[in-house]
Amino acid sequence: MTVIAENWLDTLVDEVRPHLAAGSVSTYLPELSRARADELAVAVDLGGGNILTAGNSKARFTVQSVVKVFTLLLALHHRGEDHVFARVGRDQGIGSYNSLETFIRGSGVPVNPFVNAGALVVVDMLPGDGPQHRVADLLDFVRLLTGNAAVTVNEAVARSELALSDRNRALGYFLRSHRLITGDVEELLWAYCQMCAIEVDVVDLAHAGRVLADGVDVHLGGRLLQAWHVRLVRRLMLFGGMYEASGRYATEVGIPAKCGVSGAMMGVVPRCAGVGIYGPALDESANSIGGLRLMRLLAGALEIE
Amino acid sequence: MTVIAENWLDTLVDEVRPHLAAGSVSTYLPELSRARADELAVAVDLGGGNILTAGNSKARFTVQSVVKVFTLLLALHHRGEDHVFARVGRDQGIGSYNSLETFIRGSGVPVNPFVNAGALVVVDMLPGDGPQHRVADLLDFVRLLTGNAAVTVNEAVARSELALSDRNRALGYFLRSHRLITGDVEELLWAYCQMCAIEVDVVDLAHAGRVLADGVDVHLGGRLLQAWHVRLVRRLMLFGGMYEASGRYATEVGIPAKCGVSGAMMGVVPRCAGVGIYGPALDESANSIGGLRLMRLLAGALEIE
Amino acid sequence: MTVIAENWLDTLVDEVRPHLAAGSVSTYLPELSRARADELAVAVDLGGGNILTAGNSKARFTVQSVVKVFTLLLALHHRGEDHVFARVGRDQGIGSYNSLETFIRGSGVPVNPFVNAGALVVVDMLPGDGPQHRVADLLDFVRLLTGNAAVTVNEAVARSELALSDRNRALGYFLRSHRLITGDVEELLWAYCQMCAIEVDVVDLAHAGRVLADGVDVHLGGRLLQAWHVRLVRRLMLFGGMYEASGRYATEVGIPAKCGVSGAMMGVVPRCAGVGIYGPALDESANSIGGLRLMRLLAGALEIE
Amino acid sequence: MTVIAENWLDTLVDEVRPHLAAGSVSTYLPELSRARADELAVAVDLGGGNILTAGNSKARFTVQSVVKVFTLLLALHHRGEDHVFARVGRDQGIGSYNSLETFIRGSGVPVNPFVNAGALVVVDMLPGDGPQHRVADLLDFVRLLTGNAAVTVNEAVARSELALSDRNRALGYFLRSHRLITGDVEELLWAYCQMCAIEVDVVDLAHAGRVLADGVDVHLGGRLLQAWHVRLVRRLMLFGGMYEASGRYATEVGIPAKCGVSGAMMGVVPRCAGVGIYGPALDESANSIGGLRLMRLLAGALEIE
Repeated sequence: MTVIAENWLDTLVDEVRPHLAAGSVSTYLPELSRARADELAVAVDLGGGNILTAGNSKARFTVQSVVKVFTLLLALHHRGEDHVFARVGRDQGIGSYNSLETFIRGSGVPVNPFVNAGALVVVDMLPGDGPQHRVADLLDFVRLLTGNAAVTVNEAVARSELALSDRNRALGYFLRSHRLITGDVEELLWAYCQMCAIEVDVVDLAHAGRVLADGVDVHLGGRLLQAWHVRLVRRLMLFGGMYEASGRYATEVGIPAKCGVSGAMMGVVPRCAGVGIYGPALDESANSIGGLRLMRLLAGALEIE
Repeated sequence: MTVIAENWLDTLVDEVRPHLAAGSVSTYLPELSRARADELAVAVDLGGGNILTAGNSKARFTVQSVVKVFTLLLALHHRGEDHVFARVGRDQGIGSYNSLETFIRGSGVPVNPFVNAGALVVVDMLPGDGPQHRVADLLDFVRLLTGNAAVTVNEAVARSELALSDRNRALGYFLRSHRLITGDVEELLWAYCQMCAIEVDVVDLAHAGRVLADGVDVHLGGRLLQAWHVRLVRRLMLFGGMYEASGRYATEVGIPAKCGVSGAMMGVVPRCAGVGIYGPALDESANSIGGLRLMRLLAGALEIE
Repeated sequence: MTVIAENWLDTLVDEVRPHLAAGSVSTYLPELSRARADELAVAVDLGGGNILTAGNSKARFTVQSVVKVFTLLLALHHRGEDHVFARVGRDQGIGSYNSLETFIRGSGVPVNPFVNAGALVVVDMLPGDGPQHRVADLLDFVRLLTGNAAVTVNEAVARSELALSDRNRALGYFLRSHRLITGDVEELLWAYCQMCAIEVDVVDLAHAGRVLADGVDVHLGGRLLQAWHVRLVRRLMLFGGMYEASGRYATEVGIPAKCGVSGAMMGVVPRCAGVGIYGPALDESANSIGGLRLMRLLAGALEIE
Repeated sequence: MTVIAENWLDTLVDEVRPHLAAGSVSTYLPELSRARADELAVAVDLGGGNILTAGNSKARFTVQSVVKVFTLLLALHHRGEDHVFARVGRDQGIGSYNSLETFIRGSGVPVNPFVNAGALVVVDMLPGDGPQHRVADLLDFVRLLTGNAAVTVNEAVARSELALSDRNRALGYFLRSHRLITGDVEELLWAYCQMCAIEVDVVDLAHAGRVLADGVDVHLGGRLLQAWHVRLVRRLMLFGGMYEASGRYATEVGIPAKCGVSGAMMGVVPRCAGVGIYGPALDESANSIGGLRLMRLLAGALEIE
């Protein structure tokens, strides 16, 4: 690994900041629309307690689609690879993340666990009686991954998202009509909305990314995450984590990462580091402008293959 | 018009009956699956009280998708041509009637009022407070069209359909996410399921078809159906009433007609006759085998253009 | 039929003419781009030598896609209904007339004989040794239909079209890779381009339309066109002759017709009249603005069902 | 890197060989159909002259789609990243490699350089006067990459492929109608067919793969391949090199690789090794059964991220 100058991250953030003006914050939810487009924060967790940060690292934000990484890990843990990938694909997907076209192709299943249809199928797989139990279990898992027991759900955001979920509701009923989910759709949506509304900061995401960076089995509370499952998730993040910009990201950057509509981004540099970013200024693909540029600079600095 | 032998219709039914064995009744709903595949009935209403029947003309059945003709007429009456066709297309449509692919094409609206998505948009347009009011209004309209005040909703079929409506529920929420419908989706589905479950016999359908056969304005209770609206509906029936078999039907038969999954079929021979058919043995396109064959024989006998 | 005032057609043309300014002539071929956007001509052939005309009825123009009606008739004559419709569909088709998406759907064949892919399949069916023989045979047929032995191919237009045929060439090779055509693709294209470049005037088209208006077998030279075949073609024209505007046309107008990118249009009023129109000002669907409006006025005047 | 036992590769081949019976050789070309389904050969080039082989490493075969890696490298060298990726995408692609659906999506360009449409666009970019010049230039490049000056084109295979190229011919004309290629389509096809028919053995492919494995600029004759271009190609191979099985391969294996319909496969283990495989028994996705299994075993042994 390249030697890292002390104010290295600050320099990267300074380099990226002028580009933020080209984007705008999400208006998907009232709460997201109140974010500041000029906000940019990053944390890099190198393990062993070494965490570098730059920008406003105390800013808190909801994880949104980043949670799909955590739900997939938990589903693999509880159900196993065969069960999961019989119900959701491993393809990159083309087109909008919440499109009806991103699923039910030849294989008859959502193209991957990171489009909304796939995420709903994955959440439906999680064990638990009712949405509260499932959310509590996932929250416990996220607290262990982030190393932050104070992580919690922003209920206002969750309720706001539920009220604007007609597209996901349509996906849910369509999936149930194809028997790809089996439970109550409204309960599933409520669980999903709460999961997306888990609130973190960039240090939390960097810590979680660092946990997923090693090639070994991970013990988290009573759970044992198999190294193979974590690797599968890293690979899916590598080529499918950036919505419709995934192909471009995979060829130009190369750090497995997942973005969320809040401007959240979590990266995993294998055997090296976890990265947490918050940059709510989004491009037209709903990807964080600051996040994509920071990841590209980090990939260069870290000589990512 | 060709001179009609006295037992003319019986002869046609006898000619068609041997073909019924190639089909099977719908298993979409438990109630439909109990129909008899060898059932075949037809009525031709020539106006002036002249109604010919053949087969078991007393058999009662639910109208299912035939109701989409009635809801479209009512929506045109209440909202006008521009309002209706800004929200639903006038194209034939290709593919399954309940497919997600049959709507939101270039124009952004369901391809026509006879695919399920289009029918839901049309029912959402009907005036009334809540589903019961809308159903009552439509039922009143159907009673006037059929000339049968005893026509009513089969509540058991309606409830059965509601319980199996995940696909239509998905369509409903998807349409609402695109602002193509505005009301409560569950209430809309309940109204729609009841409308599909209106129970009639072939004489009822023939009478309704006869009302729609003339090129003049039609007075029905307090309603005035404009001749132009009725003609638009006849034309849509001509080339779009038979699901994915519409193109073949339009070229080979030529009588404007609409089918339902129960085996119901209503035909409108312009300025001549209404046709009601009940033939629950369906082909692989969910069209009534007996209905299609009878329509073709009638078209030949009546020298339909 | 309504009684027709003496200067009836002139009145219709005067009513339509102000709308021409909203369109523009095709730039598809250099020769077409030289047409005058304010040109409008119409002829109505009522049979028995009664032909009404209005506008510049001497203007000559190439038939372009109108020829697809003639090639289909000839293919039905030579090959029969089963052969033809095993290789080309009878559906309305949605989307652009030269799109790759308009064919090879579920059925694996072009959606209808009026999209370019379908027309190529139909021309490939015509008997004859090489393109010149096929063109000569079709030209002979068109001369008989139009009653004008002077009708000929505009070679300059044909060569211009051939030089700009990459899309049709792609369709041709794709169709051959699916074994839907069997001959030499370049020869097929050359035949097709010549057929599209047959030059006529509105009286020619009106005469041809009148021949196709009757419900009886038609003798043309040594050929016998079966009434049933002619009716099939009329029905396909009714709901599929206007490219992507076919559904709207079929519901709003109701006269079986076929348009061409030159602004040519041929209509067939069953058992009544043939209509020829030339109006090179096209709308965004490549349909003649003047043609569509004249057809609608004619349909109203003739009380078309 | 793991220490490698002397007969390590033989063991892997022995483990894989029983699975070959589940596949069958390609019947796409007569020459390919004569391959032996039980053939399996592999070479691993670790650099510095250390090459391990197992199976019949003398077997010669045509590279087929593996050549798309070489043409892409050459296009990047001659035209630069911006030029290339303005004309071809970097997405994984879903569906058949020669499908008309794999290109002209939202972006209007082929989804990636490894589907046939994308490869044709790339070959059209290569400099040179006429097909022979282009083929000679590419062949020179391949000889340098393989370190084998005796590599040549199998003319019989090239001619056989040209004669069966209607699908690719359709793609070519379609691309030209969209101005994505500019040259003569027949000449382009002839160049492309010859390139696909370059004949190699597994040692050749392993050597080429090893050249592409390093993260440094590569001098090849007078050409300088930029490290960044080679990395872009490795990443595209990683997630898009296995036709419709690309997503599954990328998550389950993780070695950048490209397959061909002959059963050829070239892998690139970054900073470590090149892999050449020949296994003509193909699965239903046209991927080499032996190749996929060997790659998976190699990935495990080499602890590929």
